Amino acid sequence: MQKLIAVTDQIAKPTLLLDKEKALKNINAMADKAKNSKVRFRPHFKTHQSAQIGEWFKDFGVTSITVSSVEMAEYFANNGWTDISVAFPVNIREIKEINELAKKVCLHLLVESIETTNFLKKHLASPVQIWIKIDTGNHRTGILWKKKNILFELATEIQNSRNMVFNGILTHAGHTYHAKSKRKIINIYDETVSRLKQVQTNLQNAGFKKIELSIGDTPACSQVEDFSDVDEIRPGNFVFYDVMQLNLSACSEEKIAVGVACPVVAKHSQRNEIVIYGGAVHLSKEFIIDQSGHKLFGLVTQLGENGWGKIIQGTYVSGLSQEHGIIKTTDTFFDGINVGEILVILPVHSCLTVNLLKKCITLDGGEITVMP
Amino acid sequence: MQKLIAVTDQIAKPTLLLDKEKALKNINAMADKAKNSKVRFRPHFKTHQSAQIGEWFKDFGVTSITVSSVEMAEYFANNGWTDISVAFPVNIREIKEINELAKKVCLHLLVESIETTNFLKKHLASPVQIWIKIDTGNHRTGILWKKKNILFELATEIQNSRNMVFNGILTHAGHTYHAKSKRKIINIYDETVSRLKQVQTNLQNAGFKKIELSIGDTPACSQVEDFSDVDEIRPGNFVFYDVMQLNLSACSEEKIAVGVACPVVAKHSQRNEIVIYGGAVHLSKEFIIDQSGHKLFGLVTQLGENGWGKIIQGTYVSGLSQEHGIIKTTDTFFDGINVGEILVILPVHSCLTVNLLKKCITLDGGEITVMP
Repeated sequence: MQKLIAVTDQIAKPTLLLDKEKALKNINAMADKAKNSKVRFRPHFKTHQSAQIGEWFKDFGVTSITVSSVEMAEYFANNGWTDISVAFPVNIREIKEINELAKKVCLHLLVESIETTNFLKKHLASPVQIWIKIDTGNHRTGILWKKKNILFELATEIQNSRNMVFNGILTHAGHTYHAKSKRKIINIYDETVSRLKQVQTNLQNAGFKKIELSIGDTPACSQVEDFSDVDEIRPGNFVFYDVMQLNLSACSEEKIAVGVACPVVAKHSQRNEIVIYGGAVHLSKEFIIDQSGHKLFGLVTQLGENGWGKIIQGTYVSGLSQEHGIIKTTDTFFDGINVGEILVILPVHSCLTVNLLKKCITLDGGEITVMP
Repeated sequence: MQKLIAVTDQIAKPTLLLDKEKALKNINAMADKAKNSKVRFRPHFKTHQSAQIGEWFKDFGVTSITVSSVEMAEYFANNGWTDISVAFPVNIREIKEINELAKKVCLHLLVESIETTNFLKKHLASPVQIWIKIDTGNHRTGILWKKKNILFELATEIQNSRNMVFNGILTHAGHTYHAKSKRKIINIYDETVSRLKQVQTNLQNAGFKKIELSIGDTPACSQVEDFSDVDEIRPGNFVFYDVMQLNLSACSEEKIAVGVACPVVAKHSQRNEIVIYGGAVHLSKEFIIDQSGHKLFGLVTQLGENGWGKIIQGTYVSGLSQEHGIIKTTDTFFDGINVGEILVILPVHSCLTVNLLKKCITLDGGEITVMP
């Protein structure tokens, strides 16, 4: 930790800190659950977007990954990954890039319409693994689980295509992010699995053989212990967690593995507000409404000898403009902080924060870069 | 425009488009108002963050600029700008960078505390221009305009410092962003000027001579015609405008100069929703609540022969995740759009969108880069 203290002295502007030990524990816990459930662990790499962090997963036996764009698939393919799922509806405008990738790696794609499937049938140059994206209740995208005929039609089109290998059905039950309790998250998981199984049974009855089930959201993957009803899990955010997951009880505060070190630039005693250099271009404008009804853009902690400490009570980031962050706090905490000190902000949504800051330093002072 | 059509065919992923003609008109209009009011036009470059776009301002006589970070000041200093104001409370952790910059350019800094002022007094290595940041009612940061004694004390400290040249007082009346009408924006402007003048008079009565007034927000700078009560205006967003400014009536839709071209990847007829490749990592999570009470992350238009056309009525970006955008629309528009087409999203907050996308293409196919 001496090294962190040296590094801290050099922090001049908003800097993403990564507690590697916590991240490794988070990976270990999820990998263990997947192993115990005998399901494929295909972590989503959109959270860290880093080849270096990707390497850490290999020690836990991870060989297959999920990404959110073709660009990200290219980045990880160039960094040695050979089994990559792009968990986003195929963007037919990227067919050239898709064909390039499919030559190099085992590429998994998501389809959810006849139009896209027909396009791929015509333009794919080499084999890809295909999943049908199912909407099990989140209503972001995907085919509604009850649309038996469309699902049959789509599976048939895939089956009849030379370069499309039908793998199974996949969902992102993102409505767990609106769940108010652990019980509710688990209920959504159970409902999701039951709806996927219904689709699976329908397709099996129609003669389709290999139909794997893939699920993904971090809230459910964190709360559920046994995944043996599915074939694959694709959580991403769990590697770092964040205030949103904490608010959902999907993690404890000790598991949050990233924080943004921000210099204090002003103080306003009349309203117990601390102004930090750290704004929307560092943390993103993602917020939650906490249990007290506050709009909250981050929680606050301080650096100690073993990384950052406990979350400061009664203290939160109440507003962000482009570069400014406003922290509302208590008399006691306010009085102890001086202009020029560093506060650590635990972000609401770690994926967006990492995407904005593009690099981070570990507590031992190592620098980690992210996809440019 | 033939060139744009060629470029459009090549757009495979979310791409920031810039209508240079609109941006030049926006710059021209603001430069003209400043000239007619005989005030210094010191545009804020945090919106475009681009050396190339910075050059366009020179044709309108601009020689002094505003930025939001020391890093951005370094970037524009390296690109030939010599009179730069960092409109952010001095971050004392960047003293090394500040001293480097002050050797090269006429550097303007904002102070708002005795602590920071004393620190600068001790550590500044060459002269800098100093402004006291005033809170005229926005309550983000700055010293409240009525705090006569603190303001006097601060001005005295600045005056007594070898390397600090007291220039005047500066405010960002960002509460215009919460104004519900043009009348309310103009009222805030008038109140802002009257409060700054009160501070100016108090300081003049205490013996301070040169006290310039600097104001900045785009809503007021767009609505007010005559700035002759102040010495300097620092608007930034006006160069591109966006849906937030449109919603404030600070601009008409014809003035919005940036849009994000996004491929359509899925359609959901049961709820008239179109899914685009274009999410929080492209548009930012900034939203407004529109007059119908909808949470809105962008408005939608299409490319035509002369750039993009009118905003599609009854149509808006209703949700964003990391890479997905959801557009809610009408039956008619829904039916006319196919998977693989390009829609143009007018962003809610152009500054954050540019910061995320980092480069743009003009309608004649030219590529413009942004600060890395």
